Amino acid sequence: MLTNSSRFETIQTKFEQIKSNKAFEIFVISVIVASALLIGVKTYPLPQSVHQLTLIMDYFITIFFLIEITIRFIADTNKKRFFHNFWNCFDSLIVLISLVPVDNSDMAVVGRLIRVFRVLRMVSIIPELRILLTSLVKALPQLGYVMLLMFIIFYIYAAIGSTLFHAINPVLWGDITIALLTLFRVMTFEDWTDVMYETMEVYPLSWIYYLTFIFLSAFAFLNMVIGIVVSVMEQEHEKARAEKHAEEGTTEPTMSELKQEIQALKSLIQNNMQVSNNSKSD
Amino acid sequence: MLTNSSRFETIQTKFEQIKSNKAFEIFVISVIVASALLIGVKTYPLPQSVHQLTLIMDYFITIFFLIEITIRFIADTNKKRFFHNFWNCFDSLIVLISLVPVDNSDMAVVGRLIRVFRVLRMVSIIPELRILLTSLVKALPQLGYVMLLMFIIFYIYAAIGSTLFHAINPVLWGDITIALLTLFRVMTFEDWTDVMYETMEVYPLSWIYYLTFIFLSAFAFLNMVIGIVVSVMEQEHEKARAEKHAEEGTTEPTMSELKQEIQALKSLIQNNMQVSNNSKSD
Amino acid sequence: MLTNSSRFETIQTKFEQIKSNKAFEIFVISVIVASALLIGVKTYPLPQSVHQLTLIMDYFITIFFLIEITIRFIADTNKKRFFHNFWNCFDSLIVLISLVPVDNSDMAVVGRLIRVFRVLRMVSIIPELRILLTSLVKALPQLGYVMLLMFIIFYIYAAIGSTLFHAINPVLWGDITIALLTLFRVMTFEDWTDVMYETMEVYPLSWIYYLTFIFLSAFAFLNMVIGIVVSVMEQEHEKARAEKHAEEGTTEPTMSELKQEIQALKSLIQNNMQVSNNSKSD
Amino acid sequence: MLTNSSRFETIQTKFEQIKSNKAFEIFVISVIVASALLIGVKTYPLPQSVHQLTLIMDYFITIFFLIEITIRFIADTNKKRFFHNFWNCFDSLIVLISLVPVDNSDMAVVGRLIRVFRVLRMVSIIPELRILLTSLVKALPQLGYVMLLMFIIFYIYAAIGSTLFHAINPVLWGDITIALLTLFRVMTFEDWTDVMYETMEVYPLSWIYYLTFIFLSAFAFLNMVIGIVVSVMEQEHEKARAEKHAEEGTTEPTMSELKQEIQALKSLIQNNMQVSNNSKSD
Repeated sequence: MLTNSSRFETIQTKFEQIKSNKAFEIFVISVIVASALLIGVKTYPLPQSVHQLTLIMDYFITIFFLIEITIRFIADTNKKRFFHNFWNCFDSLIVLISLVPVDNSDMAVVGRLIRVFRVLRMVSIIPELRILLTSLVKALPQLGYVMLLMFIIFYIYAAIGSTLFHAINPVLWGDITIALLTLFRVMTFEDWTDVMYETMEVYPLSWIYYLTFIFLSAFAFLNMVIGIVVSVMEQEHEKARAEKHAEEGTTEPTMSELKQEIQALKSLIQNNMQVSNNSKSD
Repeated sequence: MLTNSSRFETIQTKFEQIKSNKAFEIFVISVIVASALLIGVKTYPLPQSVHQLTLIMDYFITIFFLIEITIRFIADTNKKRFFHNFWNCFDSLIVLISLVPVDNSDMAVVGRLIRVFRVLRMVSIIPELRILLTSLVKALPQLGYVMLLMFIIFYIYAAIGSTLFHAINPVLWGDITIALLTLFRVMTFEDWTDVMYETMEVYPLSWIYYLTFIFLSAFAFLNMVIGIVVSVMEQEHEKARAEKHAEEGTTEPTMSELKQEIQALKSLIQNNMQVSNNSKSD
Repeated sequence: MLTNSSRFETIQTKFEQIKSNKAFEIFVISVIVASALLIGVKTYPLPQSVHQLTLIMDYFITIFFLIEITIRFIADTNKKRFFHNFWNCFDSLIVLISLVPVDNSDMAVVGRLIRVFRVLRMVSIIPELRILLTSLVKALPQLGYVMLLMFIIFYIYAAIGSTLFHAINPVLWGDITIALLTLFRVMTFEDWTDVMYETMEVYPLSWIYYLTFIFLSAFAFLNMVIGIVVSVMEQEHEKARAEKHAEEGTTEPTMSELKQEIQALKSLIQNNMQVSNNSKSD
Repeated sequence: MLTNSSRFETIQTKFEQIKSNKAFEIFVISVIVASALLIGVKTYPLPQSVHQLTLIMDYFITIFFLIEITIRFIADTNKKRFFHNFWNCFDSLIVLISLVPVDNSDMAVVGRLIRVFRVLRMVSIIPELRILLTSLVKALPQLGYVMLLMFIIFYIYAAIGSTLFHAINPVLWGDITIALLTLFRVMTFEDWTDVMYETMEVYPLSWIYYLTFIFLSAFAFLNMVIGIVVSVMEQEHEKARAEKHAEEGTTEPTMSELKQEIQALKSLIQNNMQVSNNSKSD
């Protein structure tokens, strides 16, 4: 007779098999894609019958996601470490939030918005996307100081802008946050001349403000981009060099090894000479 | 007296000569350029007489293309493999479609549009363009996952946008496909502030939606570009390294060879010493 | 009893301790951040009481900056070299300008603008930002000639534009400076077709002017960007090569050293042979 | 007494000294800068007296340029090769065209435009700009096929556009040249959604036309940029490699040389062994 513990282990092994099953994985991805499509369909005006259908499918998907995360949790041999994995926490959070009932009309929109984030489960389920995203996030800290510098440039120009142009157009230069948004607009070149021509009527030299801002921000931005490119290429080179080194380590001798060989040869000959000289002098 | 088979072979050889003829090739390119110009000319308002001329030239070009593809087919020694080549299929398809008569006024526009694709024969006839295009197409799969990630970002934002902003402006946020188009517009910075200011009147914090979207999509796009640059440069390096290796293989000995030479020398001397020692001890 | 000189030295040592104190440094950064926030807050409409508070904080920050720069000056062992450092001069200037009283309403705006530059002290206090900025400034001279070429392109097109289009729209093409601004606008693609369609009504071929300008300026700009990328990467390679060299210098022998070793071996053997031959002929 | 020929030689040597004179060179540059400023000044509304002054300065500059090119021509030892140099021809042409009298009001504008190109003499006089420009021009042929491919894409889309959208807006899609201009506008993202929304009212699926065009043209453009970057970097690497090779050639022995040294050593020892063995067997 099986003990409780061993019975549980049997269940765990079974669930692990389910989890690792290729067909199950494809089915999970299909459900995620279906949930994504469902979200898209809901943005169209739907007849009542189809609307009912989407609600039913919504319930099914919510329950399926709950079952799937449960299977993955049970299948995991180390329960504590399950929530140390960022993606497990992420999936669990999305499932849990979906469970909150949002029936009254006020919260309906919120409920629908939360369900949108289910599409992000696509990232957590496809390993390549997960790797891509983590590598993107890893690239961010390198940009820290350039972004700080850029923010300082923005802040100084926003402070100047909201001080000088406040009275001209409060919609664009009302306070420092509005001015920051306007400057971001200028940086994207979005109708920036309209903004400039307006202030040039009062301050004819204000084109200096816009041109210096565009040059500084473009220069800082360019530097950021170049910084990323260089760091990515450095990583690639480092990888290539490491590979080459590993390869050489097994097949190709180094210069030092050659030198040692030659020196060994030298001492061998010198010893030989001494021996033969000694034997002669005997 | 020639048999049927050998007579055919003579024809094939003759056609192969025609096909390989430099003058014939230049004539084909000229006809393609002429057909391209003809398409351009037709977009201008033309007097009846010139219009008649274009129709006649159109017939001539269609027939010439038919003859040219026939020559190339007959000149090919392996008839089966002729259609394994993508460009041969492509050319044949364009020629065949051109043969469909489109006389009634409804189909006239379709007929003209199909003839536009004859310009693409320029790509199939110039080898450098063919290489360029295939290398472009080969670069696409590498971008697969970044583009999927980008589409997920677009999809989530479009779902949020069409849910929240639907009532504000159905022309821009009516359903998810319209919202995707609007987001693409925002990504190209095309009057994006007009879109933003409109929604900010209802949701004053909706600038967060636009700014996060711009940052995410720009970041993903940047990564895509850097990915292409790095992969192209890696290929170039790989090529350069392979060339260097091939070069070294014939002229420059490797470190391992040097080591073997030195070790051979060592054993030679050691043997010599033993021999001379033995001869001494004799 | 301490002499005056040694008493001063004690003070200097004390001040140096204060300056190097981590807590003091963090406090200075906090005050700079606070002064930046204060500048931001002032752009919002404030009740009288809060306005009074900002004035008091302003006085406090001005005095604190004065004390801080005095501490740094006294702590410096070499007083003369203190002002040879660009950042020290920069900080002193900002502090000194802040001391100028700007009470009357006309100058109030100027006073506020000067205080904005206090945010730049963030750059002078954080070493990483200082390094970043100096490296940015160092990259500029390399771009000198490309920027001169770009300016020549702009100047020629502005001269042509203001000569030909002057009568069409004086707001855009009035004189050469206005035309330069308009061309910068065209370069950023900001409603450039509006500018073009207007002149095309008088000069139908003026699209040539705009298209050649866009191509030339984009090409020159592209070259500038590529120039920066290449020079940055060259620097990185140079650094990597230098590091590799330094590494090899201590551990790996060069080819020349190996050759010398082999030649030393050769002469050793040749001498040995001569000796043994001589001994035989004896 | 000097002969005619030797007298001419004396003049030539004298003119060569003038030409090579640093002060003369700076004076030439100053005159070019002055002529550029003069062109700029003329775009402003001027009082009659200043206008007269500009006319006088114009005459002076024209004459000075004529003198300067004459000095350079006489100073040149090889008269025939003088016009083989592109920049000499360029300078001569600008000077000659300036000499054509343009007094009547109709031609006045043309005369002023021709004088604008004098600013280009800045490029011909400063060697660094000349090098920069020739390197830019040299980079162009590499882009030949990508630009041809881009033109084919543009041409096909323009043909489709002017066929389908002709009736919707003849100002944008009237004939193929107008459509090409409109497509260039779409490529620069300049109010491209206005163009799209207009045609979408008749052909609701026409967004496919715009999006595919943007993707294709952006992709081809990106490839062009990457192509330039890679080719520039390849050149830099090639240069670096060549330098390294040249350096190694003088100081560092190659692998082959080392191998030869070792083999020479080997044969030396083998000969030695044979000799000693022979002497033993004697």
